[in-house]
Amino acid sequence: MNFRSVDFDGSHVILLDQTKLPHVTEYMELDQLKDLWEAIFQLKVRGAPAIGVAAGYGAALAAVQVEDSQAEEELIKQVGEACDYLATSRPTAVNLFWALDRMRRVMNENLGKGTKALKEIIIAEAHKIKEEDAQTCRKIGEYGLTLLEDHMTVLTHCNAGALATAQYGTALAPIYAAKEKGMDIKVFADETRPLLQGARLTAWELMEEGVDVTLITDNMAAFVMKQGKIDAVIVGCDRVAANGDVANKIGTYGVAALAKRHEIPFYVACPISTIDMETPTGDQIPIEERNGDEVREVFGTQVAPTGVKVYNPAFDVTPNDLVTAIITEKGILRAPYDKSLKELFDK
Amino acid sequence: MNFRSVDFDGSHVILLDQTKLPHVTEYMELDQLKDLWEAIFQLKVRGAPAIGVAAGYGAALAAVQVEDSQAEEELIKQVGEACDYLATSRPTAVNLFWALDRMRRVMNENLGKGTKALKEIIIAEAHKIKEEDAQTCRKIGEYGLTLLEDHMTVLTHCNAGALATAQYGTALAPIYAAKEKGMDIKVFADETRPLLQGARLTAWELMEEGVDVTLITDNMAAFVMKQGKIDAVIVGCDRVAANGDVANKIGTYGVAALAKRHEIPFYVACPISTIDMETPTGDQIPIEERNGDEVREVFGTQVAPTGVKVYNPAFDVTPNDLVTAIITEKGILRAPYDKSLKELFDK
Repeated sequence: MNFRSVDFDGSHVILLDQTKLPHVTEYMELDQLKDLWEAIFQLKVRGAPAIGVAAGYGAALAAVQVEDSQAEEELIKQVGEACDYLATSRPTAVNLFWALDRMRRVMNENLGKGTKALKEIIIAEAHKIKEEDAQTCRKIGEYGLTLLEDHMTVLTHCNAGALATAQYGTALAPIYAAKEKGMDIKVFADETRPLLQGARLTAWELMEEGVDVTLITDNMAAFVMKQGKIDAVIVGCDRVAANGDVANKIGTYGVAALAKRHEIPFYVACPISTIDMETPTGDQIPIEERNGDEVREVFGTQVAPTGVKVYNPAFDVTPNDLVTAIITEKGILRAPYDKSLKELFDK
Repeated sequence: MNFRSVDFDGSHVILLDQTKLPHVTEYMELDQLKDLWEAIFQLKVRGAPAIGVAAGYGAALAAVQVEDSQAEEELIKQVGEACDYLATSRPTAVNLFWALDRMRRVMNENLGKGTKALKEIIIAEAHKIKEEDAQTCRKIGEYGLTLLEDHMTVLTHCNAGALATAQYGTALAPIYAAKEKGMDIKVFADETRPLLQGARLTAWELMEEGVDVTLITDNMAAFVMKQGKIDAVIVGCDRVAANGDVANKIGTYGVAALAKRHEIPFYVACPISTIDMETPTGDQIPIEERNGDEVREVFGTQVAPTGVKVYNPAFDVTPNDLVTAIITEKGILRAPYDKSLKELFDK
């Protein structure tokens, strides 16, 4: 791919600054943990998998800054403190804690190997987190590709692309897999108000990779479906309940309902880590309401009357009967989802 | 009402500058025709009926600037020239030509009555255009009110409010009628990308009139319907075909389809002048595609990659089977629309 969301060059964590997209493509080369903390805090890196990868590299950065000649205790202290510190950067990001816990665990399982060896183990683990995520996305792409045919046009909502992961993305992974195979797949991207991830990020990364993308406002999705322009919808998701209900960015439910009306398949692409068997149905998924200024303003410019009442749910829930299939790295799941999801985890 | 879109004080055309809403409420008092031309051209006054009223007052402004002592020929010349000039301000606005033709016709039907009398006739005709529009909207409001019950919540899209007409609006007329009766009707307003008429105008005017309004992004409409927050949808329209298909602001079709799914009545409010019996179905209504920069930018701020391909249809067509009723100043029309619309004009 022509860009990378997160990387590590042995002495710097390299982040593509997503807050500057789509205007400027700027990579930050960070060798200070506090700069990485700021970058995560300020959403310069975003998307659960990408944040996890960045956190892992944060632990690696702390490790490389300990000299091989220093005591192993010093390495353990520095990396442990780095993990504690980075965990405070975005307290609601589950993948952040998951990655930092994994780094700590690997370190603790390898105590006594000496500073140099332990440093290498830590760095290798960080790379492994990234590599595993890329592989997961790759497999989602390959499975998803079996649902597409040449010359199809796919609608997507929000950004579940390479920017949000180590590589390939989830919803966009089948698109990139098709591109690699030389297939002609076009994409319509909803701009995705209020935060415009579709306009800012999805459009940007698809253009960067040479995919034919057309940007529309969210309210145009229904009409382009009616005009016969869309052959399939693929979206990512934040959580899948045990019955196959799907929580994702606000607007996803509307897209799914409209796809149903127009007999267009509606696919959800996600790693199986997103499937939460402890949540029986979508009704148990809490819907985060965010600050109304996200709706009242666009990039800091006021677009609505001062003080107007706003309802700003960040997510919605799409009921399982609107989901044609769920694309995971372990294969494609279909209804009845209570059965197919259970079988996936019973294997 | 607490504001007026267009008025005339005997020597000035008074316009509420809609391009400054919702930030600043500023009335322009215009005594120069070129300033009125600029105001129409720059969309400081918008909405077909409001533009018609403004044009009529433009002819009146030209008339009052001719002294009573001057020859009638001079009055005819000045008003005629004013009509020709104003007609160039917005060449696609049908109501502009309609109002200017009406002013010319009344003047020509009253030649020979002398400068003073003819001036009064011209001014009276301009007031009559406004009064008739207000009455039309008023009746739409009264008929529409029969479809509402106390404590209902209505969703609307775009701005078909008092700002677009002489008074009351079309889609919002039943809301204002309910307010006058002391009923508690709440409104959810779609922000209506790309030009944000819902955020900028509908939210503003409902707040101005003390109506409980909640602003949402367009992609939230489906979810608020699913949550049971919406009891009815009312929208305006640009054109109704002879079979009841409705062309209106982009996004209307999606709202209608989602209303159908949630068994929420979907009402279209419009004067009968909007019904075009010469257009058999919505398929014959051309869909204007506008400049992609409207989607790439918000209030001049770029929100998408430079040069990204955009599809920007200004309108969509809602098929008649999604329309629960059409609210006009002559009553409420229901399916089958080919029959009910024909009967309306055969009366």
